[in-house]
Amino acid sequence: MSLDTLRSPLSFLRSALPAIPCLDLLEAEQQWWSTEALAISGAIDRAGTPWVRMFDRSGKRSDEILYPPEYQTMLRRGYRSGVVWRALEEKSLIPAYLFMYTISFYDPGICCPYTVSLGTAVPLSKYGSAELQAGFLPHLLRKDDSVWQGATWMTEIEGGSDLGAGVKTIARPAGDGWLLTGDKYFASNAAAELAVVAARPEGAPPGVRGLALFLVPRHRRDGSLNRFIRRLKDKIATRSVPTGEIELRDSEAYLLGPADAGIYLILEVLNLSRIANSVVSVALAQRAMADALAYAECRTAFGKRILEHPLLRHQFEHRLQSLRSALALAWESVRLLDQVWMERPPYSDRYHLFRLVAHLAKYWTAEFAVDTAKWAMEVHGGLGTLAEFGVERWLREAMILAIWEGTSHRQILDGLEVMERKQAHKMLFTLLADAAPPAELQQMERDVQTLLNLPAEQKEVQAEAVFRRLARFSANHLSA
Amino acid sequence: MSLDTLRSPLSFLRSALPAIPCLDLLEAEQQWWSTEALAISGAIDRAGTPWVRMFDRSGKRSDEILYPPEYQTMLRRGYRSGVVWRALEEKSLIPAYLFMYTISFYDPGICCPYTVSLGTAVPLSKYGSAELQAGFLPHLLRKDDSVWQGATWMTEIEGGSDLGAGVKTIARPAGDGWLLTGDKYFASNAAAELAVVAARPEGAPPGVRGLALFLVPRHRRDGSLNRFIRRLKDKIATRSVPTGEIELRDSEAYLLGPADAGIYLILEVLNLSRIANSVVSVALAQRAMADALAYAECRTAFGKRILEHPLLRHQFEHRLQSLRSALALAWESVRLLDQVWMERPPYSDRYHLFRLVAHLAKYWTAEFAVDTAKWAMEVHGGLGTLAEFGVERWLREAMILAIWEGTSHRQILDGLEVMERKQAHKMLFTLLADAAPPAELQQMERDVQTLLNLPAEQKEVQAEAVFRRLARFSANHLSA
Amino acid sequence: MSLDTLRSPLSFLRSALPAIPCLDLLEAEQQWWSTEALAISGAIDRAGTPWVRMFDRSGKRSDEILYPPEYQTMLRRGYRSGVVWRALEEKSLIPAYLFMYTISFYDPGICCPYTVSLGTAVPLSKYGSAELQAGFLPHLLRKDDSVWQGATWMTEIEGGSDLGAGVKTIARPAGDGWLLTGDKYFASNAAAELAVVAARPEGAPPGVRGLALFLVPRHRRDGSLNRFIRRLKDKIATRSVPTGEIELRDSEAYLLGPADAGIYLILEVLNLSRIANSVVSVALAQRAMADALAYAECRTAFGKRILEHPLLRHQFEHRLQSLRSALALAWESVRLLDQVWMERPPYSDRYHLFRLVAHLAKYWTAEFAVDTAKWAMEVHGGLGTLAEFGVERWLREAMILAIWEGTSHRQILDGLEVMERKQAHKMLFTLLADAAPPAELQQMERDVQTLLNLPAEQKEVQAEAVFRRLARFSANHLSA
Amino acid sequence: MSLDTLRSPLSFLRSALPAIPCLDLLEAEQQWWSTEALAISGAIDRAGTPWVRMFDRSGKRSDEILYPPEYQTMLRRGYRSGVVWRALEEKSLIPAYLFMYTISFYDPGICCPYTVSLGTAVPLSKYGSAELQAGFLPHLLRKDDSVWQGATWMTEIEGGSDLGAGVKTIARPAGDGWLLTGDKYFASNAAAELAVVAARPEGAPPGVRGLALFLVPRHRRDGSLNRFIRRLKDKIATRSVPTGEIELRDSEAYLLGPADAGIYLILEVLNLSRIANSVVSVALAQRAMADALAYAECRTAFGKRILEHPLLRHQFEHRLQSLRSALALAWESVRLLDQVWMERPPYSDRYHLFRLVAHLAKYWTAEFAVDTAKWAMEVHGGLGTLAEFGVERWLREAMILAIWEGTSHRQILDGLEVMERKQAHKMLFTLLADAAPPAELQQMERDVQTLLNLPAEQKEVQAEAVFRRLARFSANHLSA
Repeated sequence: MSLDTLRSPLSFLRSALPAIPCLDLLEAEQQWWSTEALAISGAIDRAGTPWVRMFDRSGKRSDEILYPPEYQTMLRRGYRSGVVWRALEEKSLIPAYLFMYTISFYDPGICCPYTVSLGTAVPLSKYGSAELQAGFLPHLLRKDDSVWQGATWMTEIEGGSDLGAGVKTIARPAGDGWLLTGDKYFASNAAAELAVVAARPEGAPPGVRGLALFLVPRHRRDGSLNRFIRRLKDKIATRSVPTGEIELRDSEAYLLGPADAGIYLILEVLNLSRIANSVVSVALAQRAMADALAYAECRTAFGKRILEHPLLRHQFEHRLQSLRSALALAWESVRLLDQVWMERPPYSDRYHLFRLVAHLAKYWTAEFAVDTAKWAMEVHGGLGTLAEFGVERWLREAMILAIWEGTSHRQILDGLEVMERKQAHKMLFTLLADAAPPAELQQMERDVQTLLNLPAEQKEVQAEAVFRRLARFSANHLSA
Repeated sequence: MSLDTLRSPLSFLRSALPAIPCLDLLEAEQQWWSTEALAISGAIDRAGTPWVRMFDRSGKRSDEILYPPEYQTMLRRGYRSGVVWRALEEKSLIPAYLFMYTISFYDPGICCPYTVSLGTAVPLSKYGSAELQAGFLPHLLRKDDSVWQGATWMTEIEGGSDLGAGVKTIARPAGDGWLLTGDKYFASNAAAELAVVAARPEGAPPGVRGLALFLVPRHRRDGSLNRFIRRLKDKIATRSVPTGEIELRDSEAYLLGPADAGIYLILEVLNLSRIANSVVSVALAQRAMADALAYAECRTAFGKRILEHPLLRHQFEHRLQSLRSALALAWESVRLLDQVWMERPPYSDRYHLFRLVAHLAKYWTAEFAVDTAKWAMEVHGGLGTLAEFGVERWLREAMILAIWEGTSHRQILDGLEVMERKQAHKMLFTLLADAAPPAELQQMERDVQTLLNLPAEQKEVQAEAVFRRLARFSANHLSA
Repeated sequence: MSLDTLRSPLSFLRSALPAIPCLDLLEAEQQWWSTEALAISGAIDRAGTPWVRMFDRSGKRSDEILYPPEYQTMLRRGYRSGVVWRALEEKSLIPAYLFMYTISFYDPGICCPYTVSLGTAVPLSKYGSAELQAGFLPHLLRKDDSVWQGATWMTEIEGGSDLGAGVKTIARPAGDGWLLTGDKYFASNAAAELAVVAARPEGAPPGVRGLALFLVPRHRRDGSLNRFIRRLKDKIATRSVPTGEIELRDSEAYLLGPADAGIYLILEVLNLSRIANSVVSVALAQRAMADALAYAECRTAFGKRILEHPLLRHQFEHRLQSLRSALALAWESVRLLDQVWMERPPYSDRYHLFRLVAHLAKYWTAEFAVDTAKWAMEVHGGLGTLAEFGVERWLREAMILAIWEGTSHRQILDGLEVMERKQAHKMLFTLLADAAPPAELQQMERDVQTLLNLPAEQKEVQAEAVFRRLARFSANHLSA
Repeated sequence: MSLDTLRSPLSFLRSALPAIPCLDLLEAEQQWWSTEALAISGAIDRAGTPWVRMFDRSGKRSDEILYPPEYQTMLRRGYRSGVVWRALEEKSLIPAYLFMYTISFYDPGICCPYTVSLGTAVPLSKYGSAELQAGFLPHLLRKDDSVWQGATWMTEIEGGSDLGAGVKTIARPAGDGWLLTGDKYFASNAAAELAVVAARPEGAPPGVRGLALFLVPRHRRDGSLNRFIRRLKDKIATRSVPTGEIELRDSEAYLLGPADAGIYLILEVLNLSRIANSVVSVALAQRAMADALAYAECRTAFGKRILEHPLLRHQFEHRLQSLRSALALAWESVRLLDQVWMERPPYSDRYHLFRLVAHLAKYWTAEFAVDTAKWAMEVHGGLGTLAEFGVERWLREAMILAIWEGTSHRQILDGLEVMERKQAHKMLFTLLADAAPPAELQQMERDVQTLLNLPAEQKEVQAEAVFRRLARFSANHLSA
């Protein structure tokens, strides 16, 4: 396998995946990004956190995000290409994630708007009333620049992972809809025309069981703003996602699904993002390696190109192997999600297998992305520490991937839970049985079982080492 | 051993080092930093790369770096405390590195100016003529705010580690001195009043053997600027070091030591920085842990403080152990340097042992600092990705530590060389014999020997894994 | 009169004012600013709009403004020197405005915090109940760094000058106090511990007659934040004033004076700021001239220093004369305010004379400051357009002075009103009778009377030209 | 005349100029700018001074200016439309200046690249050898995006207006060309592929008589960089012009015209920029008024839209009249330049009349632009001081126009000279004879003559007042 496969997202995907649907469209996307949008993405990153213009000249609250116009050019391309509408029209997520891989090789942040738009369209189409669907879905699925964006606003200041305690936003019934009041602290794609929002209906029980999921449009029926952007978060990266703090103040909202099953809808939305995070992490790692390769080919030290130095050459080859493993694990999670994404509770066993693989993939790919970005900076030597050369960007982007959609702690503990409660590891071992040598497989099974048999606190303490081995084991054998 | 030792640099040093000279002074330093300078350091980092004002109003080139005034307050404190003068006056480097540890817990960048000032004073005092010493040394050793700063400018655009090929700066004899012309690409402490500069005398042979070391003052004898700051590098961190590109244009210079032994002088200067880099890396890791601890104590999830979650608690305790190991390795390199820093070529065996330990320490502490900074960001969850909370700074700072003074590649290959040529590993194993269990020690020795016996290219390919094990092995047993 | 008087604020004040109380203290202030704080002020301006850290690590709203620490050093100096406490303790505003002139020569923005702190202490001491005074006044009058700052928050998004229509903030009685809810759009000194706030008690009539003035502390009695900083305004200058948008949400408040006389209290507060604006405008103009002078003395063109070119020399001398006139007018407004500031409604004739002179002074000094700052940039030629040289700052600062406390339109129309309703021009002409030649005075009187006799719309159209002449006439003859 | 003419550049030009060639093309330009490029221009301004990437990854000096890609989109549009090629192809400057007026209503800076490209093409086509023209002219006149840009680099650190003393750049003959060494301090359009550069051939006499004009390409014949961008100037505005400091180091160059007549060529180049500056100043003033109008129509105070307040309404109408006068004066300078731009020394009387009108127009239009921008800020009240609303930009832009191409001092003194030496005022009075009332004209003539009869120093002191009156007089009667 040649280092040349690193040079573009599709050359690597072609070398690693058995079949790629809509390849022509992906080639066009890759072509456009590599010639036009690459420089736009760099400029957006350099420009730092964008501004919000809160009031227009007449003193009316407007909350307009001041990106340079070419941001819209870059962003809309993906919507037109079908990163959202294709999923619902073609009843498959595969094209969406292929587009995301291709695009995030060039800009790892911009797949967040796409993912949360998908995460808005999917629950609306699964759980929305006919009237809601008729009113809102067509806007999200337009194939031109009038398309609406979606957003998925769950997290509040008191907590990301602990949604049960963290969500304080209250929903009050009002006429045929609801009014929501509360503050969302990490609200990705803050400018979206439509958002799905976690809130607690007045009188609902505490904890996750009392949560419901609502649809919240940007504007009220009377045309005024329905939610406010208090400010944009000053993130270290993903500058192409405007992540804001959102204030809901008696904001008009519509319930999705039953009021007492919101937590399932929320978790289904998170599935889409978690898998996107894995796919983007692998693409980012590939990009960092591609940049390192380009540098190692042109830089000379001690009389030869540094790529020809044995230690560095070895690192490239070894890391390429790891990249293939990481992609295999991420792609298995895509494949499984594509099988279960239209399920509703109660879920099948396959859904629980998906959940385990998703946690392994999120964990493993993000670790790999961070490590690879760090390594790529080191390959660049001193230049790696300079904003001027852009390679430091990949580490910033990777750290966000490592934290979004749950840090490693979260993946480990949630993975543990799905193994304990649903025996998901057994399905995983069945899945790996063809590829993994029996002795290794049995050893791995024993290790997992030993962990699961530990007393609760001890189990948590030991979980990391076993989970890490299980992730590597799965990745390696899925890529074989 | 309690997590409480993490809270301040001296509480940790006291828990880990057998004795600490000038403890009262260090306590005062720590007190001042924790109450006054901490906020200054944060403001300097937030302000980004400072400006250079190149011309004064009258059109005269002035190259003044526009730091806010409190930068000087912060910087000068350390000089007054003796981070430089104490080494020469007390004939020991121990106080200098103790100060650096204490200070870099609060600002990891500011030890760079101190180190390069030390790296200017030491060769001047070892190799400078009586006249040069009389003319310049007192300025560097002043105990008030009129103290001069030093700088060590070696690297040029074509290469950091490959000095033999990379240094194109030419020195021409002129009167009783020299004139230097060339461009330095990574010139730390660009505003220094005095620098030691690597250059090649006209007619000298190519490669490292043709290099000489020169003293270059900021101003010419006629009062005009003797070197120009083309610009400051836009680094991702260490904003408290103004790192510039320096233009030497017939700059007045004075030779240090013999013209054909410059490479030894250069490497002696690098010793001082490499050890500083290790000490600072450990302090940075401690700081990231201290911040994570403070956060984990106040943040609640799932009904309890996150510090009480078993997985996180375990990570804290395990990492504290690693911190002690990292300090032990770094401090061993300090201790050895303190024994050999006044040697001149030909060097003793102990000098070569020092070199090996220095490479192991630089490598291991930087890896640990990066890993710990990443982990501390993850402990903070989403807040870890926000500029507002400051924890992301530690990863930026750590990445610079991982690259400055040689990336891991460089440490591995140079470590290999000193083992091959000088059998330094044998002295290391002797050093470790008391602490390490004999069986483990023998296994480690066999692994190293096996590596050294490989053919050249294969040896380089395999070196990383062995070097990593050797570093961890040494760190663990030195801390025992 | 020599150009040398331009070089420092006190050298000019001494040349222009008959007597200067507390000269020693002012000399010390000038000395400290010219040696220490000048560079701090420059750094604050270069750093741009500061950040607000809205939440602390534990997720609690904190709204902390992230100035570099030396900002506090600079700011607190003036409070200690007595820019606020001296007024109440010495029963005179003269020292306050002398300090402001001296300080704003170095930083024209920092007098805003001082002025609004004064504008908080004065109504509290005039109109506050004994209990309110006992509870809050001592904090504002402390002579050490624990002093509280004040703020005067009137303006809302819908309008600055039209307070009657613009103030939508509502006050509801609650226990022994009030609760305020509303948004203040231009809230200077957003970090102040105490603010006086215009609001409309529930049920009060519309327009200015329904306004009341309240005292609003930063924290509630339970220690939580009593008002929120939505964001800081991104102003072109006065970076040393944190001007924010403030959200009041059931904020605890205390009524000052009668609930139906708030508009008088508000206007009394504005008197203090309007006069400060005039004094600062003159100091800024002096500073711009001082910088131009320093440049013109060192820059050479066509064979001689540009100060020696006749056209430029003439401009300097002519402008120095205008500076004296502007100071005379501003100082007359100070002198009159010092006589009337403790009056309460109904006011004396002298109060109305003060009002007219205040409008003339605000208008004239701001125009002069802008024009002088523009001229100083032109004296610097191309350097004047560069951020590097700092002279462009004065135009930015001056434009804020021209707009704050009412643009020229406002001064003209309000000046017209006080002439029409209170015949204030007659008192002005009496005041000028000694200094102005009788024929000129009579002509000026006729012009004003002709204006006042016009039909309403025509009067407004013609007002600007007459008001401008009246301002210049007054300034010239007051300085004679 | 209606305020509606303010709303677009062409609506105003159509109301004020008798005939407009290529109106269709201008309409298309206006349409594109108002819908597409307006937002790009705003984003470029907000982004601040762009970066220079000095080295590529391989360590080769590249000096690439990091504008966002849409900058090129915006810039190239004008070249394609013919802002340069049309002048040479159609033998008329009228279309060029019409395009500049139209474009600079939207972006006042971007006409600088166009002007200096014209200022490169014109002397090359007038004075270049056949070989030089064949080699370089076609690149400048291309009608697609491969077009080259030009630049006119005269000014050095020691002086703008005093070229005779200020230009220290030395030209040495080398083969069939020259090698230039020196530093240009205000080098507009620093990224241009070709520049005309003022330098002094070795051995030439001091002063302006020793200057020659050279053509300097961006790259040497061997492909390496022929000049270096030391840095970009951090200007307060015109962010769409990359103004740099340029280092020439034995840069390859070609002589234009005779080596001893360079000063004439230089002044001919400056003619083109000075007239552009006047045209842009008027367009900027119109833009500021258009923004003020849009605001005054939507903002309400005291019960009605502020545009309906008599004082403000009157100001709008009066200022619109002044805008027409300013355009008339500027356009007279365009019309005259269009008649004389192909002249070579010795020049006609008409050329000297042009010079006087050009000085009056540069002076008057810039003063008017600054005053109008200040007024537009004041119309916006507090919003005028906020970066968020964009209106403060016009004052920054206007200040650059007031300083570039000679401050008012320069225009006054140079205008005086052409009246004294060439009696240009007599031709001006002839020109105005039809429009101006005879009595006023005679009075104006007497005032000028009185001035010219004064002793030298006195003449300079008095010049400003007379020059100002003459400019206003000419503008008013040309617009009648």
